[in-house]
Amino acid sequence: MSSPVIEALKKRRSIYGISKENVSTDERIQQIIEETVKYVPSSFNSQTSRVVLLLGANHDKLWDMTKETLRKVMNNEEAFKNTDQKIESFKSGYGTVLFFEDMDIVKNLQDQFALYKDNFPVWANQTSGMIQLIVWTLLEQEGLGASLQHYNPLIDEQVQKEWKLPASWKLIAQMPFGKPTAPAGEKEFMPIEERVKVIK
Amino acid sequence: MSSPVIEALKKRRSIYGISKENVSTDERIQQIIEETVKYVPSSFNSQTSRVVLLLGANHDKLWDMTKETLRKVMNNEEAFKNTDQKIESFKSGYGTVLFFEDMDIVKNLQDQFALYKDNFPVWANQTSGMIQLIVWTLLEQEGLGASLQHYNPLIDEQVQKEWKLPASWKLIAQMPFGKPTAPAGEKEFMPIEERVKVIK
Repeated sequence: MSSPVIEALKKRRSIYGISKENVSTDERIQQIIEETVKYVPSSFNSQTSRVVLLLGANHDKLWDMTKETLRKVMNNEEAFKNTDQKIESFKSGYGTVLFFEDMDIVKNLQDQFALYKDNFPVWANQTSGMIQLIVWTLLEQEGLGASLQHYNPLIDEQVQKEWKLPASWKLIAQMPFGKPTAPAGEKEFMPIEERVKVIK
Repeated sequence: MSSPVIEALKKRRSIYGISKENVSTDERIQQIIEETVKYVPSSFNSQTSRVVLLLGANHDKLWDMTKETLRKVMNNEEAFKNTDQKIESFKSGYGTVLFFEDMDIVKNLQDQFALYKDNFPVWANQTSGMIQLIVWTLLEQEGLGASLQHYNPLIDEQVQKEWKLPASWKLIAQMPFGKPTAPAGEKEFMPIEERVKVIK
């Protein structure tokens, strides 16, 4: 199917081998994120999503922080070795995109529209997913490899403190990225007819 | 920014005025959905998302069903008038895309990876959001207008029964689409600097 959106979607993969070489520019990465956050839809146009782009020493700091937290939680140096390696591979990248949802807005919506109370947190996750995918896809188009990590809620408090973020910003995902140094792994697909039905 | 993905994203809007004229083909709409479902990522490559495309009489049936359910719930003919009009406008479209998540897979993941138990339903919503956005954007590129509706869980049981869908498929959203007969409304945007921070 000849669609640039589908072509871009196909090329987006989880890239774990990344380096600090920037094959794009900071301005362009910022612009990708801003355009995505602006144009991805949200329920009632509530614009709940927030994004923080960490670069340079701040990117490194995030992964050092995550590593020390995990070391304490695991409390077993032998078992920690694999985790250590994994975190170092994220730190080897150029930057990290942090995805948040502003829970103050979610709570306001819940108060205003009691009928949909249970739905607003769900819809916030859906809009966050949309933003994650588009940023990921656009980073790939810039020649950058990325993957999606979830060390929340373990690191939430530290992240909020370190970068003085509003307490209402709930961390949803972390996307380390950099110049790809290794290709993506194999990916298996279920038969599509088990996933999509056309009824006419 | 010259990116076909961003350009496509910008053009995607909520279109409420739609007609039954098909400006694309059923095969192409099916292909859009299949490619999207195949290539959108999911946590642990769990491929939890399911999609049903309702066309023709089945599309009409969905909205008739939804209307009758709402009529009973509201139990007030005067208040129901607006709802009636809204549902009729969705029924005026060419088809509806139903988005589901397979909760059997989510439960299996929860059993297998107890540490992430609470996360799998959240990640299922995130991958569903990704698929919703890409389908919406690609329908727009076909010249079709769409909007995203949430009459779940009110209609879940009827939908499952009517189209004999697995009980584990949880309805997440409904996307009626058709040839646009009226432009999108105005959209307001928060200042982007309140939503995106770059820290370097």
